[in-house]
Amino acid sequence: MGYMDTRQRIKNVFSLVRRDLDAIIVLNEKSQNPSFSYLTGLSKGVFEGAVAVFEESGDFSLIMSKLDKSSIDISNATVYTADDKNGKKIKDILKETTSNFKTIGIDGNNISYSAYRGLRRILVRKRFIDVGKEILKSRLIKDTYEINCIKKACKIADRALADLPDIIKEGISEREVALELEHRMRLYGADEKSFDTIVAFGKNSAIPHHITSNRRLKRGDIVLIDMGARYNGYVSDITRSYVFGSPNDKQREMFDTVLHAQQIGINKIKEGTKFGEIFEIIHRYIENTKFKGKFIHSAGHTIGLEVHDGFSIAKGAKERFKNGITFTIEPGVYLKAFGGIRIEDDILIEDGRARVLTQALKEIEI
Amino acid sequence: MGYMDTRQRIKNVFSLVRRDLDAIIVLNEKSQNPSFSYLTGLSKGVFEGAVAVFEESGDFSLIMSKLDKSSIDISNATVYTADDKNGKKIKDILKETTSNFKTIGIDGNNISYSAYRGLRRILVRKRFIDVGKEILKSRLIKDTYEINCIKKACKIADRALADLPDIIKEGISEREVALELEHRMRLYGADEKSFDTIVAFGKNSAIPHHITSNRRLKRGDIVLIDMGARYNGYVSDITRSYVFGSPNDKQREMFDTVLHAQQIGINKIKEGTKFGEIFEIIHRYIENTKFKGKFIHSAGHTIGLEVHDGFSIAKGAKERFKNGITFTIEPGVYLKAFGGIRIEDDILIEDGRARVLTQALKEIEI
Repeated sequence: MGYMDTRQRIKNVFSLVRRDLDAIIVLNEKSQNPSFSYLTGLSKGVFEGAVAVFEESGDFSLIMSKLDKSSIDISNATVYTADDKNGKKIKDILKETTSNFKTIGIDGNNISYSAYRGLRRILVRKRFIDVGKEILKSRLIKDTYEINCIKKACKIADRALADLPDIIKEGISEREVALELEHRMRLYGADEKSFDTIVAFGKNSAIPHHITSNRRLKRGDIVLIDMGARYNGYVSDITRSYVFGSPNDKQREMFDTVLHAQQIGINKIKEGTKFGEIFEIIHRYIENTKFKGKFIHSAGHTIGLEVHDGFSIAKGAKERFKNGITFTIEPGVYLKAFGGIRIEDDILIEDGRARVLTQALKEIEI
Repeated sequence: MGYMDTRQRIKNVFSLVRRDLDAIIVLNEKSQNPSFSYLTGLSKGVFEGAVAVFEESGDFSLIMSKLDKSSIDISNATVYTADDKNGKKIKDILKETTSNFKTIGIDGNNISYSAYRGLRRILVRKRFIDVGKEILKSRLIKDTYEINCIKKACKIADRALADLPDIIKEGISEREVALELEHRMRLYGADEKSFDTIVAFGKNSAIPHHITSNRRLKRGDIVLIDMGARYNGYVSDITRSYVFGSPNDKQREMFDTVLHAQQIGINKIKEGTKFGEIFEIIHRYIENTKFKGKFIHSAGHTIGLEVHDGFSIAKGAKERFKNGITFTIEPGVYLKAFGGIRIEDDILIEDGRARVLTQALKEIEI
């Protein structure tokens, strides 16, 4: 996957903050904090309660429990191991490493209100600034290591989806299909699924966030699958829609409309285009078909350490496409009590243009 | 699983808050918020950005995106569907439903600092109180529905572990064992694993939070497995340690010490005992063996909607065992560069006594 330059990432974030800042503190609370993964490079493992203190130079202190692997070797990190029972606690080490600092950045999107209050109690007489927006902005442009991980996550999802014809059969349940696809992603190298796979048959596909159920497949059903893999912390997110057996005219028209809307949108993406413009192009196209009013969500979102990595391809979104941005384009139409079609691909801006990373076939019949 | 009485749960939380409170607002941000699951009863599905407003009567308003299933039928809930594009937004509905309220509780453990600030901007001139502690306290005592889900999660983990002799073989990797156990938990009815399975061979087992790797199994290796299932939102968490082949004297002594420490601890648990007392009994026992100083973590933790559900069986912990509390007891000893042994079971307090829910065999040889 190449070399991971967390020093450059840390410097990026500091350069985006337009105020004096002595350090940024990021806590890894109960679950994996994406900003912690991003700035430390530690995208696997528990590290529950670990704290990292980043400085403008790109160096950082990492304070963690002795229950975690202690032999971490990161060139720009000083690792401290806390011992809550007999030695220095995490908060004692934190106090020491920040004793010279006055103004401290925190990531408001990824710290609980309780933890924030705890931090204020431990570090008295410091000024706290929320730099969550700047961290998200830095995460928006992926470096080579990140792009390689996302490409791999896309390949894994593609490969699992290619097995679908072997999996799908009359009478199989949504849950069984989801389980099999997730298992294959793991066999093909995923660390885990990037989110709970959505498998929706028939009219269930009319609900964009359908909860995969025990419904069984019938001939003529729409089959909507929305899934992704996680690889070294980075995700893919792909949706395909099919008809099991022979599609009827309405299903075919929905499918063609969505596929065409997606292609038109992708073709218009280039460096400098605003996210909102691409939403408008896709939305306008669907509004001029018989499926007017049936495209009820955004046209996509950035992907990275999170499935929704900070920015939406939505109405009015002002961010502009730049080299290194990775995102989804996912139009859909949903007819209540009938069904829905959504087609979603993962895309990278490279040399100023959209490069589609997910390559699973888009054929209506399965 | 029986009837889920969220009305009673909501009333419980209000009764634990010793201040006037008009409502409690719980947000479901990016991932499943356990307090949202607990108070609404919705333990599956996305519900990203959903907001619930609970009142002392046990009734609540649920405000969610139209991308989620709209046909939710909860007897004590009024469901509002927001439409960010053409209709009322979530924040508009939230303003309306809380217009008569002055003092509002929030769950500081499960709301980000950013979301808290957002809430304050939307709901001006309200007083906010952090009721995170009271929610955890209410979650501590499980109702019948919750106990049934935890029992099922334990059964699923037990059943997967019973397959281990068929899975394990010389040369298999830690990752391959983890993948197979997780897949079997899904086949046996788990919604998902409750956390990333730890499989540690040989000296890797000396790190309590070892990250499952590609290390391959050799004869004479310790095999430590820490895993659990999630069922309807509720978890199990079980650890077993084995030796692959014939254990040597040191491995056997570690195993016997840990097993004995666990049994002594469990035998002393009864209604009214403090969590800290059980820690002391287990700790003291190990300190009086040749493994003095090698038991380096707490003796367990409560389980429920989270793997660490709010309380630890740790030094000085003042909570007392009561009927309906579910928790783990998990002593371990860890010898650096040699290996570790940990044995963990899930326990319910029933009729004033400890009832062990996990039943997987505890035999050293595999």
